[in-house]
Amino acid sequence: MKFGGTSMAGIERIRSVAARVKREVEAGHEVAVVVSAMAGETDRLVGFCREASPLYDRAEYDVVVSAGEQVTSGLLAIALQAIGVPARSWLGWQLPVRTDDAHAKARIGAIDTAALDASLSAGEVAVIPGFQGVTDGGRSTTLGRGGSDTSAVAVAAAMRAERCDIYTDVDGVYTTDPRIVPRARKLAKVTYEEMLELASVGAKVLQTRSVGLAMKEGVRVQVLSSFTGAPDGEGAPMADTLPGTMIVGEEEVDDMERQLITGIAHDKNEAKITLTQVPDRPGAVASIFAPLADTGINVDMIIQNVAHIHDGATGSTDVTFTVPAADLARSLDVLEQGRAAIGYERMVHDTRVAKISVVGVGMRSHAGVAATMFTTLGARGINVQAISTSEIKVSVLIDEDETELAVRVLHTAYGLDAA
Amino acid sequence: MKFGGTSMAGIERIRSVAARVKREVEAGHEVAVVVSAMAGETDRLVGFCREASPLYDRAEYDVVVSAGEQVTSGLLAIALQAIGVPARSWLGWQLPVRTDDAHAKARIGAIDTAALDASLSAGEVAVIPGFQGVTDGGRSTTLGRGGSDTSAVAVAAAMRAERCDIYTDVDGVYTTDPRIVPRARKLAKVTYEEMLELASVGAKVLQTRSVGLAMKEGVRVQVLSSFTGAPDGEGAPMADTLPGTMIVGEEEVDDMERQLITGIAHDKNEAKITLTQVPDRPGAVASIFAPLADTGINVDMIIQNVAHIHDGATGSTDVTFTVPAADLARSLDVLEQGRAAIGYERMVHDTRVAKISVVGVGMRSHAGVAATMFTTLGARGINVQAISTSEIKVSVLIDEDETELAVRVLHTAYGLDAA
Repeated sequence: MKFGGTSMAGIERIRSVAARVKREVEAGHEVAVVVSAMAGETDRLVGFCREASPLYDRAEYDVVVSAGEQVTSGLLAIALQAIGVPARSWLGWQLPVRTDDAHAKARIGAIDTAALDASLSAGEVAVIPGFQGVTDGGRSTTLGRGGSDTSAVAVAAAMRAERCDIYTDVDGVYTTDPRIVPRARKLAKVTYEEMLELASVGAKVLQTRSVGLAMKEGVRVQVLSSFTGAPDGEGAPMADTLPGTMIVGEEEVDDMERQLITGIAHDKNEAKITLTQVPDRPGAVASIFAPLADTGINVDMIIQNVAHIHDGATGSTDVTFTVPAADLARSLDVLEQGRAAIGYERMVHDTRVAKISVVGVGMRSHAGVAATMFTTLGARGINVQAISTSEIKVSVLIDEDETELAVRVLHTAYGLDAA
Repeated sequence: MKFGGTSMAGIERIRSVAARVKREVEAGHEVAVVVSAMAGETDRLVGFCREASPLYDRAEYDVVVSAGEQVTSGLLAIALQAIGVPARSWLGWQLPVRTDDAHAKARIGAIDTAALDASLSAGEVAVIPGFQGVTDGGRSTTLGRGGSDTSAVAVAAAMRAERCDIYTDVDGVYTTDPRIVPRARKLAKVTYEEMLELASVGAKVLQTRSVGLAMKEGVRVQVLSSFTGAPDGEGAPMADTLPGTMIVGEEEVDDMERQLITGIAHDKNEAKITLTQVPDRPGAVASIFAPLADTGINVDMIIQNVAHIHDGATGSTDVTFTVPAADLARSLDVLEQGRAAIGYERMVHDTRVAKISVVGVGMRSHAGVAATMFTTLGARGINVQAISTSEIKVSVLIDEDETELAVRVLHTAYGLDAA
């Protein structure tokens, strides 16, 4: 069981978590619980580090920020004992959760489970702070923001757990954002690959890394709500938890329940850059994208228009692509410096764009998914500025103002609206 | 160097601490720094534990509350690096600081200094969270409130440090409380034994345990202020630190500088209990104090009045003694239960009392210290309710309202007023 920061925000909520854990224990299960820091605490600690030095040492940052989960793991152990459930905390260095030494964004190598297994067999609940680990050299590490989901999946994998239940602010994975489409349906099952596509394009339910790890290790992950009634986390602490969404391997989704399209995601955190009149010669495109890649900027969608024939012998072409909005300034800087090498005429950019993606493993065996998308959007006069596809996804870039309209009409077009 | 919670309260102050440490490094010293949690943070964490369960598991309490010093040790390391001083944090489990497993009040057994020595020799400042350690079984411990002073002395002893500088809210040890006697003088030197008596009777400069450890290990401790100008800690962060008070072995105080009396302490945290008409027979007194001792209550001053001869064959006596005010309710409870066994007539108590102590190693070789005390107090009409003495201390119990008057007249009588 993994509980996020909203579920751990204050003793009253930690008590509710303890009660929820007790129900699992009483159902006869051996339980390990992975916890986040209290909501807001990690931000407070990160703020201290930045204030102490903008160029803080990441090894010391890890010492500071890992304190948040340390506190909640001790408190949950106390709250469990208070209701008669034997429990103890296991800090990252105690288990240990071994990681590499990439401080502030460490990757888990292995988790020793001998002590953990013995503790669970003896009837104790193990409470494990998420987000933290320890290097072979004995220094504290953290996994990067949102790393507690990854910790939970890693612990579940190491223990060969039957299930990894991730309690969060939402009660499952929906066919699309219910705030946009009230008739969106909660999915009973979604495959790892679909979840990866949905998570990476803006359905912020689970950290992408944790889904990748679950897929690699074959961990069955369930997303469900810590609260009943109120998806914003302000509701009454959970009494009866509703079933959530199971994230499983493709073999666990049988053909009967398989939809053509599983969900529709939207993402407004992209920015579009267009370079005009790039010389149409070998290597021109490489001279654009190689420097961006070297700077660690992820280019997503790319379109190259047909070449214009100009006065001279060589044609030229406009190149349009997207980068994360957070990397826009750095991207423009890199491209400005490469102007002579690339030879473009003008550089224009636009952050008022949105990426809409339809996702589903079902599209592997069905043609026409992309065609339905273009037809549906075209019928509403929504202009497609760029396209990208994967085996189980089709994404288009549109004007940001048309996001909600596009999601709504596509949700209907693919038959996803609840009855 | 050890810095308390007021010195670590916020990044601005941590930066000042870093600057102070840098000056020691630039003076050519190898420095280890022991830090407290930010002022108020330990209370916040203890509050969480109590709220989670009044009967919290002390092992988990240690996991929770040790987080406060973990945070400040990482932040000070970052602040030091930011001003060009190589530094790293060493958590209790990393050094390790080995303790017994008496959680929440653990005692330090040994500190491994191999890694620490190597780090210092390599030119790094070691930043060590106070108050925390680890058991042989690998669980986190804390030393009890105020334990950071003890951590600092223990680290200094283990490293055979030349000096242990304890930066605190006050700028040294005074002949008495300067708020009562403005002409109180700061002492340049005080012996361990005097400091123990002064600390245990209410001069709250250093934790008693840390002084005892310093005496046992022969660590030269200096108490000095983190701040200049304002003893309440609200002043400007230290620019030039004034010399503080050295706490040293008796052999380091030469006869020339030795005063008859070193200081005068007062303590309002005592309560007086009187049992009337206790039968004057063998074992009666034991039947009072044995149950109190079994409950862990420290009885301090005891007076037994002369026996009254009553009608019967056996005489009776009134027995008066003091206990810490915090233990009064429990003491009354224990004595009420023992009423039949003790056979007293009435039990009365009074919390409006104060203990005034004159302390000085010089009194070993001089008679008349107690006589001067009684004469001086008597001349002002101050009634002495009880007396206790040690080799280097005379204490009297008086009415609480007369505390300030008594301290003032004694300070003058022993020639302690500054010129």
